[in-house]
Amino acid sequence: MYLSALLTSAGINISVCLLVFSLYSVLRKQPQFMNVYFGQRLAQVKSRRQDPFCFERLVPSASWILKAWEASEDQIHAAGGLDALVFLRLIVFSIRIFSLAATICIFLLIPLNYYGKDMEHKLIPSQSLEVFSIANVPKGSRRLWAHCLVLYIISCCTCVLLYHEYRSITKKRLLYITEGHSNLSQFTVLVRGIPWSRAESYSETVTKFFTTYYASSYLSHKMVYQSGTVQKLMSDAGKMYKMLKTTTRQQLCGSSLMRCGLCGGTATSFKILAIEGQIDKGRRDFDGSDLRKKECAAAFVFFRTRYAALVVAQSLQSPNPMKWVTEKAPDPKDVYWMNLGLPYRIFWMRRIAILVVSILFVAFFLVPVTLTQSLVNLDKLQNTFPFLNGVLKRKYMSQFVTGYLPSVILMLFLYIAPPVMLLFSTMEGAISRSGRKKSACVKLLYFMIWNVFFANIFTWTIIKNLVGEVARRLQDPKNIPNELAIAIPTTATFFMTYVLTSGWASLSFEVLQPLALLCNLLYRYVLRNKDESSYGIWTFPYHTEIPRVILFGVLGFTCSIMAPLILPLLLVYFFLAYLVYRNQILNVYVTNYQTGGLYWPTVHNATIFSLVLTQIIASGVFGIKKSTVASSFTFPLIILTLLFNEYCRRRFLPVFQSTAAKVLIEMDWQDEQSGRMEEIHRNLQSSYCQFASTTLHQDETMHVSPCETVVSGLQDLEDITSGKTLISGLWDGHSSPEELNWK
Amino acid sequence: MYLSALLTSAGINISVCLLVFSLYSVLRKQPQFMNVYFGQRLAQVKSRRQDPFCFERLVPSASWILKAWEASEDQIHAAGGLDALVFLRLIVFSIRIFSLAATICIFLLIPLNYYGKDMEHKLIPSQSLEVFSIANVPKGSRRLWAHCLVLYIISCCTCVLLYHEYRSITKKRLLYITEGHSNLSQFTVLVRGIPWSRAESYSETVTKFFTTYYASSYLSHKMVYQSGTVQKLMSDAGKMYKMLKTTTRQQLCGSSLMRCGLCGGTATSFKILAIEGQIDKGRRDFDGSDLRKKECAAAFVFFRTRYAALVVAQSLQSPNPMKWVTEKAPDPKDVYWMNLGLPYRIFWMRRIAILVVSILFVAFFLVPVTLTQSLVNLDKLQNTFPFLNGVLKRKYMSQFVTGYLPSVILMLFLYIAPPVMLLFSTMEGAISRSGRKKSACVKLLYFMIWNVFFANIFTWTIIKNLVGEVARRLQDPKNIPNELAIAIPTTATFFMTYVLTSGWASLSFEVLQPLALLCNLLYRYVLRNKDESSYGIWTFPYHTEIPRVILFGVLGFTCSIMAPLILPLLLVYFFLAYLVYRNQILNVYVTNYQTGGLYWPTVHNATIFSLVLTQIIASGVFGIKKSTVASSFTFPLIILTLLFNEYCRRRFLPVFQSTAAKVLIEMDWQDEQSGRMEEIHRNLQSSYCQFASTTLHQDETMHVSPCETVVSGLQDLEDITSGKTLISGLWDGHSSPEELNWK
Repeated sequence: MYLSALLTSAGINISVCLLVFSLYSVLRKQPQFMNVYFGQRLAQVKSRRQDPFCFERLVPSASWILKAWEASEDQIHAAGGLDALVFLRLIVFSIRIFSLAATICIFLLIPLNYYGKDMEHKLIPSQSLEVFSIANVPKGSRRLWAHCLVLYIISCCTCVLLYHEYRSITKKRLLYITEGHSNLSQFTVLVRGIPWSRAESYSETVTKFFTTYYASSYLSHKMVYQSGTVQKLMSDAGKMYKMLKTTTRQQLCGSSLMRCGLCGGTATSFKILAIEGQIDKGRRDFDGSDLRKKECAAAFVFFRTRYAALVVAQSLQSPNPMKWVTEKAPDPKDVYWMNLGLPYRIFWMRRIAILVVSILFVAFFLVPVTLTQSLVNLDKLQNTFPFLNGVLKRKYMSQFVTGYLPSVILMLFLYIAPPVMLLFSTMEGAISRSGRKKSACVKLLYFMIWNVFFANIFTWTIIKNLVGEVARRLQDPKNIPNELAIAIPTTATFFMTYVLTSGWASLSFEVLQPLALLCNLLYRYVLRNKDESSYGIWTFPYHTEIPRVILFGVLGFTCSIMAPLILPLLLVYFFLAYLVYRNQILNVYVTNYQTGGLYWPTVHNATIFSLVLTQIIASGVFGIKKSTVASSFTFPLIILTLLFNEYCRRRFLPVFQSTAAKVLIEMDWQDEQSGRMEEIHRNLQSSYCQFASTTLHQDETMHVSPCETVVSGLQDLEDITSGKTLISGLWDGHSSPEELNWK
Repeated sequence: MYLSALLTSAGINISVCLLVFSLYSVLRKQPQFMNVYFGQRLAQVKSRRQDPFCFERLVPSASWILKAWEASEDQIHAAGGLDALVFLRLIVFSIRIFSLAATICIFLLIPLNYYGKDMEHKLIPSQSLEVFSIANVPKGSRRLWAHCLVLYIISCCTCVLLYHEYRSITKKRLLYITEGHSNLSQFTVLVRGIPWSRAESYSETVTKFFTTYYASSYLSHKMVYQSGTVQKLMSDAGKMYKMLKTTTRQQLCGSSLMRCGLCGGTATSFKILAIEGQIDKGRRDFDGSDLRKKECAAAFVFFRTRYAALVVAQSLQSPNPMKWVTEKAPDPKDVYWMNLGLPYRIFWMRRIAILVVSILFVAFFLVPVTLTQSLVNLDKLQNTFPFLNGVLKRKYMSQFVTGYLPSVILMLFLYIAPPVMLLFSTMEGAISRSGRKKSACVKLLYFMIWNVFFANIFTWTIIKNLVGEVARRLQDPKNIPNELAIAIPTTATFFMTYVLTSGWASLSFEVLQPLALLCNLLYRYVLRNKDESSYGIWTFPYHTEIPRVILFGVLGFTCSIMAPLILPLLLVYFFLAYLVYRNQILNVYVTNYQTGGLYWPTVHNATIFSLVLTQIIASGVFGIKKSTVASSFTFPLIILTLLFNEYCRRRFLPVFQSTAAKVLIEMDWQDEQSGRMEEIHRNLQSSYCQFASTTLHQDETMHVSPCETVVSGLQDLEDITSGKTLISGLWDGHSSPEELNWK
């Protein structure tokens, strides 16, 4: 591939990006798309301005970029939680390290590579890209020492930056824990594998066990019910909600002054009380004794202090490790109720089965990737399909096919993976929605690194050589670094186009939200549904975005020394990503649940992996280039990097796996002194509500104590009609839109 | 190798065994060797009979076998603790499974193999051993189905037996925990990484931290001091002990009636009080403020209840995971003081360094093994060293060289490994002596399986083929099962001789205790030391014996289907081992510390490993023999075995890793109700005594409360002169005889 082809590809992508960004800047000003582009804002601000139509609304502008740029860290934290901060730190980290790498590589390595071999240089645009890579440095050249030096610099800087990031995120996580004073999950333990007894119900068994062994700290508990029961209740509650909504709508329309004062509310409050009576009736039905039979062997157990809950969650409770299995409960909004009802003893089998299926899925995914990659090698394609000759002879067509099409096809195929992985994580038995997303994130990370990075290199190797020859050579594990070393500088071409298409283009799609836009239009103009709140608001798809950004990091690291020309393209991607994702976090996605920064250890490990991979490949390249001294000089670097990783693992990782007793004890003291503890204890019982979460946050209505005024009841009811609770309620069910939002 | 050569080897070994056993049965009756062969008994029974000399003492007898056979499980448990029971269960398990395997294989597989190929059969003694192995079954034979069936039967029986053993040992471990009411380590937590502060000593920091955060459960603590200080104290204490010993000896000689009554002890008790005064002075010196400067950042912290200690040991204490690192304290006698003083933050580096060094050690150990193996292939040896032709032409010489010598050389080389591994485990930072032994056990297991089993197979493969060819074939991981499948049936010959020499002979050496005997003779007749108590008593060398028995298990499993002739030899080994080790546990070894059955998970995993290895090899053999259906029929077996292992890991392993909260809470209640708790609290402070353990159990003297009578003081002092405390005291120092007892 020539530089001009790359520039063509870049040109296409830049124009697409500009077009999409302009389109976005216009669309976001249209009030009818407000819930597509300002879901987060809508969730926070209840009132909506009805702007009059003006010409300005049709002029593209860059104001959103400025707003995204200016937002402070606190605003991001408020809008997206710690996970959003972690995600943006990942992008900032990438920008920092690749700015440095790009500066060094462009000013030091590219000239060295370009004038590496004594050859007649053509005009730069029609120069092959390989001229700029390490492939152009002759064997045994002393210039390789510069590459080795650059590798050392990049590795050291990466480690220093990683250390600082890990430390700062550890501090932020500690803050997240200590500031979560009203975080009820800290008082709660999820108990599974409750032993069955003929004489007692599960609930009685739980009460007996915890009052016996944890008499001083046990508060109460809440059983989990069979999901069949819950589904029946969901439909009942759905009906109830509809009725409620209609009534409150009428009230709000009828008396718009109601919100301003307390006066004259007798008739309405009577109505509301009637509705509450209906809810009460529902609850009474639910508390019936027939439900006892539908209890699952799982319960949420509440304790008086955070420390007591921590201790119970960590200990082995029973001499039979399959019974009384305790673990830290997820946040009430984060609970994945579907999986709680399943018997605990089958989970390990499910986990193994899913592991096997995931590996198979990743392995068999290679087929479409191989097809894709074959498109890049145009001559091979023409040989295989002679009828294509006519089409491909045209210059632009050929450049389009080599530069653009393969990545698009790959990207389309990759769209299948996220929902499948999310499904796998669900079947694995995740108990929290954030945990499910995190598990899918790790699976997708393996998937992308294997299927995009390694598979492309191997298919390239197979296309260049005979299949048998490759198989023979790869059988020796020692050959793999060498094969990578041969392949990387040349496969870099494909990766450059991949950055352009999958990277840049995906960002423009991310900002435009075509799926949400389509849904919106469908609802509005086809289904004629005027209720804006039902169009859908999503939580941030960390499980797709983190693996993608990490993948670009892997590409950046491995290509940095070999083919530095990829670095500027990557930098543009990361800058754009920084702006786009800030904008999306601030405006689009709501944050119903978060892991509290648990993504960072994954990011850290993946970065260390790509660093070590780079070092191994560099060592292989130096070996091939007959610079054995430089090759052996990289070995200490590998060992040092691994030692650094081990240090970080010991120093920071435990904070992400468990909470320090000291911290929780101090929080308990503070709450006891300030008298907040009793309030928390009062709220605990109503917090984990299996049915309420499906009946659209009725729990918020329910746990208002009867003595509070009607007004607060009204506000709660109004809250139901706002987008936030509706959507989060809707998506609390099984088929949440995150599963659809696999882009 | 022919059957006759094997029989020659067996003959030599049987006669050696008989000779040694007879010698042992005579020697054990001699009073002067009592402390060699009855260390355990001596430790229990204080008085010693002085038998008159009689002729019977010189007649060999089999009474010891009878006694070992008749001992009940309770006696074994009392003498050797749970670890001894686990070890004997391993042998019983091996006897059971290999009896079954031998029965099936000898009556079903050996006839099938023998008449496998249409050939003229020679007389059985001059028949090659390969005729009895699967190597004699022609390709594509239907007889392979019988082998596949036997593999299924053996695998199923192994899993069933393993499950029952794991369950029964889990129960025994729970009993061990619940019955250990006076086990002070259950109340104790080892804290390391205490943060350093300019203002306070470590001891003050500990007090402050635990009184702040664990006010209700914290009792007291005991600091660990720098080992330089301890060594100085050790020498002081040594002097003090000598003085004490002389004094008490004089007393005991002077008034032998003292033991019978309380009367007339005024003068002696005055003397003893004077000595106690000296001890008190030593303690006062030690408590001096200059010692504060020599405190280490480690301490034993005592809690009021077992549950509180468990909770503290399990939790992360500080947001910085390198500080306030807590873990379950080992038993007072089990503490390995040397490593406690080291700063915690360097442990991870030491651990990695030791891991690397261990791997290198295992890898470079191959050289002597290769040399050894070359001796078996006599023709190759004659080709390489032509001058040997004359010697080796003699028939018996040749049979001796092929049948006996190689194993002896290998065995001698293997003697280096245990002390080295024990040293590695020490340097790794083990905090308990039992933990150090367990870590060395795991290392030696890898070492033996790799260096005896795999290395022999690979060297055999290399000798049979060209080195380059082997390297090329082994580069493909898929080829390894095939290579194993080719090698096993023929290498089985070597393993048979290995069972004879290393197995049988090592048992006879074990029973004879040549090292202890030599020490005894050296002390008695060369150094003219009449003090019997200073000859040395050892704890059981689990770290060498468990890997050895497991190794024979691996040989038995892998060869069972391929070359069943090894099974009778193994059965004889296991029967002998059962008798010998029972005898040794009952009579020879003292039990100062134990892991409480923690060796069983290692045994279980090793057995599963050998089972899966057998299945993989069998699958390879079926593949080579062109019975692809039988080959693919073994795959479900592998998967089922792995699933079974995973189930056991979930069902039983947690009990070995942590103690159930329920169990400890119930124990706390019982102790509180029975009023034992206060007594335990009183004993706690004096239990962990860094100096006492080096000054020959003075702690036992020290923690007698002053109000007790002088007689109890006297009994304690007498206790000091008995072998038990002296030896256990002596070996509590750094260079314990376990490190020497590497056989």
